[in-house]
Amino acid sequence: MNAEILAVGTELLMGQIANTNAQYLSRRFAELGIDVYYHSVVGDNPRRLKDALIRALERSDIVITTGGLGPTKDDLTKETIAEALGLPLVVHQESLDYIKAFFSKLNRPMCENNVKQAYLPAGSKVVPNRNGTAPGCIVEQGGKVVIMLPGPPKEMIPMFDETVFPYFEGKTGHIIGSRLVKVFGMGESEVETRLMDLVEQQSNPTIAPYVGYGDISLRVTAKCRNRDEAEALIAPVVEKIRERLGACVYSDSGESMEEVVLKLLSEKGWTLSTAESCTGGMLASRLINIPGASRVFDRGFVTYSNAAKVQELGVSQKTLEAFGAVSRETAEEMATRLVERTKTNAGLAVTGIAGPDGGTPEKPVGLVYVAACLNGRTESLKLNLRGDRERIRTVSCLHALDLLRRMLLGIQ
Amino acid sequence: MNAEILAVGTELLMGQIANTNAQYLSRRFAELGIDVYYHSVVGDNPRRLKDALIRALERSDIVITTGGLGPTKDDLTKETIAEALGLPLVVHQESLDYIKAFFSKLNRPMCENNVKQAYLPAGSKVVPNRNGTAPGCIVEQGGKVVIMLPGPPKEMIPMFDETVFPYFEGKTGHIIGSRLVKVFGMGESEVETRLMDLVEQQSNPTIAPYVGYGDISLRVTAKCRNRDEAEALIAPVVEKIRERLGACVYSDSGESMEEVVLKLLSEKGWTLSTAESCTGGMLASRLINIPGASRVFDRGFVTYSNAAKVQELGVSQKTLEAFGAVSRETAEEMATRLVERTKTNAGLAVTGIAGPDGGTPEKPVGLVYVAACLNGRTESLKLNLRGDRERIRTVSCLHALDLLRRMLLGIQ
Repeated sequence: MNAEILAVGTELLMGQIANTNAQYLSRRFAELGIDVYYHSVVGDNPRRLKDALIRALERSDIVITTGGLGPTKDDLTKETIAEALGLPLVVHQESLDYIKAFFSKLNRPMCENNVKQAYLPAGSKVVPNRNGTAPGCIVEQGGKVVIMLPGPPKEMIPMFDETVFPYFEGKTGHIIGSRLVKVFGMGESEVETRLMDLVEQQSNPTIAPYVGYGDISLRVTAKCRNRDEAEALIAPVVEKIRERLGACVYSDSGESMEEVVLKLLSEKGWTLSTAESCTGGMLASRLINIPGASRVFDRGFVTYSNAAKVQELGVSQKTLEAFGAVSRETAEEMATRLVERTKTNAGLAVTGIAGPDGGTPEKPVGLVYVAACLNGRTESLKLNLRGDRERIRTVSCLHALDLLRRMLLGIQ
Repeated sequence: MNAEILAVGTELLMGQIANTNAQYLSRRFAELGIDVYYHSVVGDNPRRLKDALIRALERSDIVITTGGLGPTKDDLTKETIAEALGLPLVVHQESLDYIKAFFSKLNRPMCENNVKQAYLPAGSKVVPNRNGTAPGCIVEQGGKVVIMLPGPPKEMIPMFDETVFPYFEGKTGHIIGSRLVKVFGMGESEVETRLMDLVEQQSNPTIAPYVGYGDISLRVTAKCRNRDEAEALIAPVVEKIRERLGACVYSDSGESMEEVVLKLLSEKGWTLSTAESCTGGMLASRLINIPGASRVFDRGFVTYSNAAKVQELGVSQKTLEAFGAVSRETAEEMATRLVERTKTNAGLAVTGIAGPDGGTPEKPVGLVYVAACLNGRTESLKLNLRGDRERIRTVSCLHALDLLRRMLLGIQ
């Protein structure tokens, strides 16, 4: 089976938003083992939408549309597709009741326009929408499947996950289980080399790598009859990946590096503080973006100026003068003094040159030192990073967190 | 004239990346006054690429492809399109020399594969690539234009801006000037209402709104014979927008809120510090992401725990007990004490409940107070924000910066 993703919306053709829905759906279809050969985007124009639909049905088994299910007169996806398929639109009472209840909960009057959202092609299967007023639908006709979902990702994604994904599991007679293995501290080509035979030999489960901003994710996906069978197939492959990549695997359940570090600290009832120069609050910010971080994260310092490093952390003027603000000695002293002053169990420090200015031949842009102090022991790393300011800062944060993770786990 | 954007790359169909190139190009074509009616994506598959190209040439005047110009055997865009157009590929000596120099500068040997990157369809106009080895090209045939650009945005965007955009300016006989007006503190519908007649009446320049994460951008675009004429057309429209939206316009040259605030402080030689609770370093991080921030930004505190607010900033235990950590009183005291302790000219403080947990009926998720202290005077704002943790934190940062901006400019 193969699928085509057809997005409808002039805002996409005007460049006001990126087609992230197509990316999400493509990933999920890959997990289902359904090939996606085409993405298409058309505007809110019935003629071009109809042409695109006919073309898509000629070349694909499944056509999934996003967008154009709103209440306005520009929203014509359902009307256009129903006409192209020769199906009348009929009211779906449950959806109409839901839309009415949706507005009364918000204490807002329902517009007459919203009634049209409850009309669906006759014989279609409804895809409920918990987060908005536009239901989606699934139409089967002549061996083809047409699925219509709304455009806003916050509505579309849960609708796909809760109704459309299980629909295809039911259709294909198998369910899909998957786990996301997260890797840091090893380059893309090294990961590929170490896993190449696994990736090539494995057909169930499959292993698909995604290269992120400084880290790599490996999606392990199994097709099975039930969840237990999926887990039984996936677990040994995850084990093999762990054997090949060692301590560079920081999660086998899709957690972010921040989540992993916060969890390790939380399990021991330990606290964390941060002292940042070039990352300038990004490290603290990433930690605090995890709900519940307050149990572990105590406080952070953005000591951008040398004076701040001395006054807030207690780094000695001597160290700064002898080695400079960007040095292993300063990084280690930042982490050590930080923990002393805040009486936290763990402290992380980052100092470096994120560019684009400020580099010298001895200390070029991308030179960053990270240090971690854990219960009295301090370790540090020297990094030479590539990329722009944003990338250097992001990857520095990951290295600092990873250093602490390794210390917490007793990994060299 | 109308254009179609045809992206080539299996990584797009696998959902490994989003098609941000299509968004960028669509925006730029809108500025050129060229309509984009279709986006398409196909994989690294010559048959489907050829079909998509033929289809695109039937329905569009301009076809611009991204991707598939790399050195590997999967990269087949040029070969496939040249064949479809009946054009031989011929070596472009200047590009070959450039590729050779590119590798010798990196001290890496050039692969034989890279030679094929210097072959272009006969008669095509080369689009030089400053940031990679794959040149692009422009082919004119039978009144149609086919343009091929590489996939990586860091290569594609400068190539489009430096060669393709001026090419269309030359073709259309006019140049395009544009300015980005940035707006904060006014809702999307309010902005639309205030500008509706301008947006509808204006045909040159045009006004196109883009809704961001908490702020709104208005692109004012003029078609003219030269830059001076463009500026003469744009300036009065920007003036009208300023009249309608008042102090909510924080930049008329595309600057971010951080840039605007740092510039205002820098002009006076003033310094800035931050004290953050729920934003947790995000405010400092955004400021420090601006190159040159070090001239203004002195230091920041992430005082997530109450103890940290007392110990690091000197907020009184009494205030915390009487009003709670999330209160106007605590926010103002954070900002005032911060400036006293750091001896900076300006201080920004944020405290609030970013969720998803921690809300109560009296202090729900999304309740945030921001305060700014400027040379001894402290002002604050109470916010009730919607959205998830990330959005609440982001919008809080913008409000804090905007409060300081207004104080710096003496705007009520």
